[in-house]
Amino acid sequence: MGKVFAQASVSLDGFIAGPGGSGIDRLFAWCAAGDVATPSAQPERLTYRTSAGSAAYLRDLIENTGSCVVGRRLFDLTNGWGGTHPMGDKPVFVVTHQAPQDWVNTGTPFVFITDGVESAIEKAVAAAGGLNVGVGPGSTVAQALTAGLLDEIRLDLVPTVLGGGTPMLDGVRGVPVDFADPEVIAGVGVTHLIYRRARI
Amino acid sequence: MGKVFAQASVSLDGFIAGPGGSGIDRLFAWCAAGDVATPSAQPERLTYRTSAGSAAYLRDLIENTGSCVVGRRLFDLTNGWGGTHPMGDKPVFVVTHQAPQDWVNTGTPFVFITDGVESAIEKAVAAAGGLNVGVGPGSTVAQALTAGLLDEIRLDLVPTVLGGGTPMLDGVRGVPVDFADPEVIAGVGVTHLIYRRARI
Repeated sequence: MGKVFAQASVSLDGFIAGPGGSGIDRLFAWCAAGDVATPSAQPERLTYRTSAGSAAYLRDLIENTGSCVVGRRLFDLTNGWGGTHPMGDKPVFVVTHQAPQDWVNTGTPFVFITDGVESAIEKAVAAAGGLNVGVGPGSTVAQALTAGLLDEIRLDLVPTVLGGGTPMLDGVRGVPVDFADPEVIAGVGVTHLIYRRARI
Repeated sequence: MGKVFAQASVSLDGFIAGPGGSGIDRLFAWCAAGDVATPSAQPERLTYRTSAGSAAYLRDLIENTGSCVVGRRLFDLTNGWGGTHPMGDKPVFVVTHQAPQDWVNTGTPFVFITDGVESAIEKAVAAAGGLNVGVGPGSTVAQALTAGLLDEIRLDLVPTVLGGGTPMLDGVRGVPVDFADPEVIAGVGVTHLIYRRARI
């Protein structure tokens, strides 16, 4: 069975977006800071150009992720990523209180889950075909961590201080939650830190 | 001239202390997680026992720090570290609105600075004899960073999620503040990340 992981580009002060949604360009500058091309799951829209280290990291991420779990807030903010999630045609489970009435799947098979993050992760694991399940970003990560369902946090640590904004992790309960020392992959404009946890 | 640096043991969610001051033991567990002994500046009180990587990191820190700048809140919380700051007899500049009337220096030469962090850092640099100046922890770090006076952040990243508490950096202005990619030193129970910045 694959792992359940969260991944985020994070500032040195722990934010995945700066004040008022600023800083996003800065946090993702590493995705275009090198010469090695890595096609995204939607190569017609995006090809990463990174250092060799980041390219290997991204390739592993793209090839080995079988499904995703996201929150409804992000789904709405992005208008369902215009129909196609960055992971392409892999199933995406959207945690929500009530499924939208008028959503028609186009590029990505979105599945609306109304009975919580734990249920969403269970269904995403079943749908992943033995590959990994990506969770988040946003409050779904804290909920999954609180529920003991997160095996791995992939921190893409960006050498900038944003001074405020949206925390990577907010509202985690049952703390402290401990991980093993990380696998470290040096990039350009980023350091990838893979923190693993035994499944409870 | 030496560098002006801040250093902190920080959780994955960016806190230097958990809710209600919890988590301190967890954040500093790496200081006793190995076999290599490194005497602190007060060896009669504390000898670190760490991995070889952390030992080299600590030795550099202890040997090459010539003075410190701290905030008055921390000075009061620790009652002036009982008279002797962890760095021993090196001068410590305390940023305060008003110097205490009744403080008598014993182990550490404390100097009370009432005209701000910039003045404190200037005096600490002059007193460091060409060695480095340590700033913080606490709000002095954010003030030094905002003033463009911090050359380096040494992040001792601990693989735990604390869920809340005291942020490492709070109230930084003039953001984003960018650093170079870090020097990474793997430890046991910690990853040391040294982020350098050109002096403005």
